[in-house]
Amino acid sequence: MHITALAGGVGGARFLRGLLAAAPDADVTVIGNVGDDMTMHGLRICPDLDTVMYTLGGGIHEGQGWGRVDETFGVAEELKAYGVGPDWFTLGDKDIATHLVRTQMLGAGYPLSAVTEALCTRWELPVRLLPSTDERVETHVVVDDPEAPGGRRAVHFQEYWVRMHAPDARAIVSVGVEDAKPAPGVLEAIAEADVIVLPPSNPVVSVGTILNIPGIRQAVAGATAPVVGLSPIVGGGPVRGMADKVLAAVGVDVTAAAVAKHYGPELLDGWLVDADADASAVAEVEAAGIACRAVPLMMSSAEATRAMARAALDLAAEIAASHGSARPAS
Amino acid sequence: MHITALAGGVGGARFLRGLLAAAPDADVTVIGNVGDDMTMHGLRICPDLDTVMYTLGGGIHEGQGWGRVDETFGVAEELKAYGVGPDWFTLGDKDIATHLVRTQMLGAGYPLSAVTEALCTRWELPVRLLPSTDERVETHVVVDDPEAPGGRRAVHFQEYWVRMHAPDARAIVSVGVEDAKPAPGVLEAIAEADVIVLPPSNPVVSVGTILNIPGIRQAVAGATAPVVGLSPIVGGGPVRGMADKVLAAVGVDVTAAAVAKHYGPELLDGWLVDADADASAVAEVEAAGIACRAVPLMMSSAEATRAMARAALDLAAEIAASHGSARPAS
Repeated sequence: MHITALAGGVGGARFLRGLLAAAPDADVTVIGNVGDDMTMHGLRICPDLDTVMYTLGGGIHEGQGWGRVDETFGVAEELKAYGVGPDWFTLGDKDIATHLVRTQMLGAGYPLSAVTEALCTRWELPVRLLPSTDERVETHVVVDDPEAPGGRRAVHFQEYWVRMHAPDARAIVSVGVEDAKPAPGVLEAIAEADVIVLPPSNPVVSVGTILNIPGIRQAVAGATAPVVGLSPIVGGGPVRGMADKVLAAVGVDVTAAAVAKHYGPELLDGWLVDADADASAVAEVEAAGIACRAVPLMMSSAEATRAMARAALDLAAEIAASHGSARPAS
Repeated sequence: MHITALAGGVGGARFLRGLLAAAPDADVTVIGNVGDDMTMHGLRICPDLDTVMYTLGGGIHEGQGWGRVDETFGVAEELKAYGVGPDWFTLGDKDIATHLVRTQMLGAGYPLSAVTEALCTRWELPVRLLPSTDERVETHVVVDDPEAPGGRRAVHFQEYWVRMHAPDARAIVSVGVEDAKPAPGVLEAIAEADVIVLPPSNPVVSVGTILNIPGIRQAVAGATAPVVGLSPIVGGGPVRGMADKVLAAVGVDVTAAAVAKHYGPELLDGWLVDADADASAVAEVEAAGIACRAVPLMMSSAEATRAMARAALDLAAEIAASHGSARPAS
C-alpha cells in the first residue's frame, strides 16, 4: 500500500510515527512543509523537514518534540559572545551540522529535494521525505504594530511563532508561492497513492502552505485515493501550538468542523474528530459532504497515536469501498 | 612607539605576546598571513588570523597553541555521522561560531579586513590585526604523487601540513597572489612604523606569503623603520613545525644564516640567532650586510619570549641610532 501524507512539524512527525506503526508494511511518502524555512547565521534551516527527519530517524528530543536529543550549545554560546544573531532562536550543535551540510549542498547547486534525500540517507528514514517544493516559499504573518507605517508589519513565521508567541494575525502570506513548483516526486506520490493522509498538523501554515504550492491542491483534489484528515482542533482549541491565531487570520472558526469545511469536500473525503470533545461535529461535517468519524484524537502515547492512524486508514478503506474502488487499507 | 609585525600562526602569536610584554605602551599592528585560509563545510576559515586573535584575546588552547580552550566538538561529531568533510581537520564548536560570523559577513559583502576588525572587537585585542590582503591568496604545495599525471600534484597548504605532515615539497605556489592588493591599512602601518618585526614565523609560507603580496615587500624594504627578524631556525632545524620542508622547496638551507640571507639585506636590517646553537652564524649574517646578535631564542616561557622581543627592539634601536635617525625603542 502506498500512503502519502502532507505533514508539518512536531504534530505531523508524531502522527507519522503512529502511521508507520499502524501500517508497518506500507510505502509511505511524506510531503513536508517548507514555509517555516529560514536562513540564520548564513545557515539554511528547514524546521519542519528536520523535525520529521529527526523524529522518524530516532534523533529527536522526545520531551520538546523538536531539536536533537543530547544536544549541546557550544556554537550558540559563542555566537552570543560575538553579539550576533537573534536571542529568541538558539541552534544546537548537532542541528547546526545538519544545516551546514544542507547549506553547503544548496550552495553547490543541489535542489532542496536532493539535499533532503542526502540528509535522510544518514538517518535511514522509514519513509520517503520530499519537500513540497524546491523553490523558496516563506510564510510571513501580518501583525499589528503601532510603530510601523500603516500600523502593521509582516514578520517571518518563525519570528511570529517563536519570538512573538503568536499574537493576533491579520493575514498569512506565502512569499514566493506564485513561482513555486511541486518538488520532483510530489505530484507522482499524490497520483500513485492508495491513501492520502492529512495529519493533525496546522491547517493554515503547515498543510495549507503545502496545498498552496501551485498544482498540489489540484493534485490532491483530483487523486483517485481517498483523502482523510485528522482534526488538529479538539474541543474548540488546538491540541498543540497556536493554530487558533492563524485560523482566525484566514477567517476560519476554531472548531473541528470548521477546519474540515475549510479544506472542503472537493479536497477531503474523510475527517476524524475527537470522540470525547467533538462527537457532535460529525453530523455537521457529514452534512458538508465529508465522511466523518469520532475517535480519540489525543496523541498521548505511541499506542494512542497508532490507533488514530489506524482509524484514518480504516476510514479511507471504507470510503474507497463505497466508491467501488476498494483496496485493502493494510 | 609604533611597531608593525608580520605574523604567521602559532609561533607568531606566541611571540606577539612577548612583544606586548616587552613594549606594553607600544601601538602594535599585526599584518597576518591569509595563505592558509580555506573553505570547509562552507565556512571560511582563517587559521593564522584566528590563532593570533585567540592567543592575544585570551581564548587560545595554550597546550596546543591553536584552537579554543575548553572547546567542544558537537558539530564535528555530527558531521562525521553524516559522512561529510575530511577526517583530518576537525572544527570545534566555539571555533565554528567565529567562522559562521566571518562567512556570513563575507557573504554580505564585507571585505576580510572589516570582518577581522569586527571579530577582534569582541576579543578586545591589544593590537590592531590586519589581514595582509582582502583578496584570496591560497598557498598550494606541489608534492610527488606517482599516481598523478606527471607524477606530481598540488595540494592546499592545510592538506599538505595537517593531513600529509609535510612530505618533501617541490614548489610552493601562492594561488591568486598576482591579483592581490595589500589590505587597507597595511602599507600605512609599514610606512608609519618605528620598528618592523619579523617574528620567528615560517619564512616561506607565513612571512614569505605576506611579503609576496604585491607592494608589501617593497614597502617593508623601503620603510624608514629598521626591520628586525628572529630566526625560526635554531641549530639547523625549525623550533616548531616543519619549516625545513618548505625551505628546501624554495632552495634555502635550513640554517639561521640562510634564512636571513633569504630575506636579504635589502629587506632585513637586523637578525637574531640563537645564542646556544647558532652563535657562529653571526659573522656570516653580518657579512651579508645584516646586523646580527645571538640571544636565547626558545619561547620556553612568557619571560623568555618577552626577553626575545626585548632583544629585537634593542637591536632595532641600535640600528636606528647608527642610521642617525634614532628613536627610542621603548
